[in-house]
Parts: sequence; C-alpha cells; structure tokens
Amino acid sequence: MSDPRTVAVLGAGSWGTAFARVMATATGEEQDRARDIVVWSRRPEVAEAINRDHANPQYLPGIVLPESVRAVTDARAAVAGAGVVVVALPAQHARAALRELADAVARDAVVVSLMKGLERGTDARPSQVCTEELGLTPDRFAVVSGPNLALEIARGEPTATVVASASAATAERVAALVAGRTFRPYTNTDVVGVEIGGIVKNVIALAVGICDGQGLGDNSKASVITRGLAETTRLAVALGAEPATLAGLAGLGDLVATCASPLSRNRSAGRLMGTGLSADEAVAAMSQTAEGIKSVSAVVHVARAHGVEMPISEAMDRLVAGELDVHRLAGLLLARDLKSEGRHA
Amino acid sequence: MSDPRTVAVLGAGSWGTAFARVMATATGEEQDRARDIVVWSRRPEVAEAINRDHANPQYLPGIVLPESVRAVTDARAAVAGAGVVVVALPAQHARAALRELADAVARDAVVVSLMKGLERGTDARPSQVCTEELGLTPDRFAVVSGPNLALEIARGEPTATVVASASAATAERVAALVAGRTFRPYTNTDVVGVEIGGIVKNVIALAVGICDGQGLGDNSKASVITRGLAETTRLAVALGAEPATLAGLAGLGDLVATCASPLSRNRSAGRLMGTGLSADEAVAAMSQTAEGIKSVSAVVHVARAHGVEMPISEAMDRLVAGELDVHRLAGLLLARDLKSEGRHA
Repeated sequence: MSDPRTVAVLGAGSWGTAFARVMATATGEEQDRARDIVVWSRRPEVAEAINRDHANPQYLPGIVLPESVRAVTDARAAVAGAGVVVVALPAQHARAALRELADAVARDAVVVSLMKGLERGTDARPSQVCTEELGLTPDRFAVVSGPNLALEIARGEPTATVVASASAATAERVAALVAGRTFRPYTNTDVVGVEIGGIVKNVIALAVGICDGQGLGDNSKASVITRGLAETTRLAVALGAEPATLAGLAGLGDLVATCASPLSRNRSAGRLMGTGLSADEAVAAMSQTAEGIKSVSAVVHVARAHGVEMPISEAMDRLVAGELDVHRLAGLLLARDLKSEGRHA
Repeated sequence: MSDPRTVAVLGAGSWGTAFARVMATATGEEQDRARDIVVWSRRPEVAEAINRDHANPQYLPGIVLPESVRAVTDARAAVAGAGVVVVALPAQHARAALRELADAVARDAVVVSLMKGLERGTDARPSQVCTEELGLTPDRFAVVSGPNLALEIARGEPTATVVASASAATAERVAALVAGRTFRPYTNTDVVGVEIGGIVKNVIALAVGICDGQGLGDNSKASVITRGLAETTRLAVALGAEPATLAGLAGLGDLVATCASPLSRNRSAGRLMGTGLSADEAVAAMSQTAEGIKSVSAVVHVARAHGVEMPISEAMDRLVAGELDVHRLAGLLLARDLKSEGRHA
C-alpha cells in the first residue's frame, strides 16, 4: 500500500518542477493535499540545487521552491511508497524510464501525466505509454493539460487547467491535490481529447513561430492558429475525443497561450527555423526540448492512418525532415484558391 | 442601373481605407475588379489627404494609397451610380447616415458591411441596420470579417477573411472583388455567425486588454479567450448561426488576431481600463473608437433576451457602466469552484 499523500514527480524540467510547487502550495482540504513531494532528477546538480537552494535555476529562474519539495537522483527511491506518481519526462524517453520503475511503483498508485508528445515509432500517446509500462487500469491514470506556461504558474499567476481521467473520481482526486489560490483545475473524462490537444499544439506552435521568424503579422498567425485547431480537432475526433474538449482550455486555451508566449519552447524553435535554421540547428541553439519537432512525424503518421487531413502538420513534418524550404512555407499555409471556408476548416 | 465596377466606401477610418486599398490592388479577373473607388469622409482634411497625398496618415500611417482610390466629402456623390457600397462607419452612427442616403443608393447595388458593433437601443446587427435603412433584399447584402488588422492588410501582409451573404453568388462576387496576392477571402452563407463573431470579439478583447493592464500573463489571457469564444458561440447559435463559423476565421481567427495585436483598439482600451481608467477616460486617451465599449450593453441585452449566459460580457458591461471595480475583475473571470469544464465552457 502507498501513502496517498506522498507524491513522486519524475522529471525536474520546468513543468515538473512548477507542478511540484503547485502541489506544495495547494489550498484544498488537509487530507487531499500532498505532504511529501519528491522530485526525481537524473542530474545531481539539479537535485542538489533543489535540496540546498530550494531552486531550479536552469528551468525555473528566479523561483523559490517550498521546503516540502525535495529531490533525489534515484528514481526508485522517489516512487517507493508514493500514492501519486507524476510523469514529467520528455515523451520520447518516458517508456524506457517507466519500464525500469514498473516494479517499484505501488500497485495502488495513481499516475498523472504532464507529457505532451507522441512516441516516435509506436505513435503511442503518453496515456498508452504509462498504462502499458506500469500495467495501470484506466482509473489509475490522469492527464493534466491546459494553458499552462510553467514559469507563469511558478510565479503564482492565475491559471486554469484540465484534469482528465477515464474515472471521474480519479480526476477529482488529482484536481483536489493541485487546486490552489491561483491554480484552478477543471475535470473531464476525455483523456484522448486532452492529450491530442496538448500534443498537436506543439506542432502548430512551431508553425506560428515560423511565421514570426519570417516576419508575418498577427493576421497570418491567427489564420494558422485557427486552421491548426481545426486539424487538431479532426484528429482528436477521429481517435474518439469530444470536439468540445478541443474548444476548451486543453485545446484552444493551451494553443493560444503557447502561441502568444515568448516563453514557449516550440514557438521559439519555430522562430529560429523561420530565419533559416534547420530543426537540428534550432534545437542546438536552445537549451531545452521542443516536443513539436520530436512528435511531428508520429502526428502525421497517426493522421494518415486515420484518413485525417492535417496540412499544417504535414508541412511541419516535411520542414523538420529537411524536405521543404521554409521560404515556401507561408505560401503553402496561407495561399489557397478562393473557396468556401467550411470545406477546409 | 449602377456600374458594377464602381465602388463607394462609406467611412475613411483605418479599415475603410485599408479595404479601399484591398480593392484597388485586387488581382482577380478584369471584369470582377473595381475600377473606380470613391471613399466618403465626413472630414475635408482626410479627403484632401487621400486625393492630394494618396495617404490617410491619421488612420493608416506610412501607407501609400493607389491612385484609383479617391475621396469625397459628399456621401450622396460617393454612392451615386455605385454598384457596390461598402459601409465602414462606426456601428452607432450607421443608421442615421444610411437613412439620409437611402434614395441615392442604386436599387441594384450590393451593400458590404465591415462593421463590428451592435446598435445600442435597438440591439440591431449591422446587417439589420443596412437592410432596414436601405430596403435591401438579403441577396444584396454581404459582411466581411476575419483576422483583419487593418494596418497589416494595408502593408500587404498575408491575410485571410470571410465574406458571408445569404446569397452564395453575392458572397462570390464580393470575394472576387477583393481577392489579391496577399488577401484571401473565403465565403459562406452564415451572416449571423460572422457578424456575432466580429461584434463579441471586441468585448472579449476589452477583457484581455484588462488582463494585460493588470499584469496577468498568457495563461490567464488564454483562459479568457477560450471562455470568451465559448460565450460568443453560445450567443451566435442562439441567434441561428452555425457553430463552425465561430470556430473559423471570423470567430476564433478574428478573436486571436485582435487579442494578440498591439494594434487593436479594443485591447488597448481594455489595457487602459486595467490600469484603473474609466471607460470614458480610456476612450478619451485614445484617438479612435473602441466598438467593444459601445456595444457591450447591447450584447448583454440580446444575450439575456435569449437566455444565454455570457459571464465575461456581463462583467465588461458592469465595468463599462462603472458598477464594478476593475481590481475585482480577475477574480470574477478566473476564480470558480472546482468543476467539470463541460458544464461551463
């Protein structure tokens, strides 16, 4: 049996660390809140900074972490006895890390995914990776996603989010764990819709960043966002999601926050690509992952398998693969014959 | 009989002037394009600048207008013989101006509205004001709306828009009149949806501007945009619109462009109000109209008449009326009990 008030956070990047802070500052009923929050970082210097300085200066500059957040470099030690395991790993590395931990995670623990990427090769969503590797029943899994720029949340700026689980009770339990004065969770049961919203927005944010890099204005970027949400919704619905989820905080909300913010890694990567850098060069120029670059091929693969047209994602895939000149992109995204919008939106 | 290639533009503000430039630079078939574009300005100095300097420096600084755009101060002279009459007047002043012109507008002219406001007192949409005052059948009316920041369009930045008319043929005709290398019209027949998208976005942009003025971040603003589009869609559907219209360029697209842009008058007005200015003070501090401030009471009135909940618009109405302290607004917009998103989105 695990302790329901002990939480392990796997991954000490900006969102994992900010989420640890969210749980440490939650304002729900005493019995619903975490009392011990252990962050796993693979890197000793990050764990040491958290334990010694209550800070994670590389990923959350300027933020002081509460003393109830501590860090370890041994993932098995982090999850041992934890009633809640939060997975905040890069989507492409989660399966291997979880496989090594499967026997250490308590059989009654709830697993919460913060991940926003499709796994290359398998096209698996984070929910599938987690449940497969940890042997979870659907009621032991939840995903958290929304307009959630990590640094804003860590600064205590007002933020809403969505907690989705096949089990409404699980979603409510996770919501109670994170709800605070400035962090407002809403719950639903549409795991697929919430996941696809978070995954594809990283691809659309790349396209918006490219518009920036090419000096295009807000009219153009708004069109890309509009068409981007339309193709996201088509894919999600083909996979069984509710369209309303994509019109909500985990779809439209997350997309708009990411595309508006100078803090977005994916938009920043796109901006660099818009000035002529390759995807590899853009990633090398930044110090963090851009999930959109990593997942785009899997997004396009899933879309084709389901017969869903995703012209913006297709263009991003070709661009990332080096098969498309960025200077031809604006024309591809925006120039079409005069037609009725409905046939293409 | 009117000349189908002579166009009158009523109103020489930024959008009216930019739209005249769009028509003068259209690239459709010769027989579909305007050859004479007459802009009516009430102010002699504006008309003189257009005729003498090919410029409208107050409303479109830095833009050179084509020589085929000329201006007059006599509205009857502008519309005489025109096959297309574009109405780009402040929504609150359109009825009186059109009433004086009704007998001068050709009986076969098509009227195109660029207006984005509800008429106070009557709650009439621009389509209703135009058709009532000019005695139009629905096939003689079209509305143009989308992510259309006027200055970006005048600079030739790539832009998509929506042309809606009850008559698909009329929408196609207007689309052909404006289509150009960087201006891409899409057509539909959902006049109500396109109008409501353009009207309510000005109210939501006020709210987003207030978030800015109060120093709130992109997470908060994305939530306001998401909930704002949800309430806009509820109102539009109650009035007979298609939900897909609001998810498209004239709904989501226009809202996102306006809320992202430093050029938006409504967002700018909101930003001033967010720092503590009253609505009147904010308008006085700016040199242009903020339609959202003018229309919000009519929006709320229509919503109540149709039993539609519009919490953001309601809050804006109370704020504009001086009945709500702006410092209480963020709490009102963002703080709610933990709940399922679906019940409120």
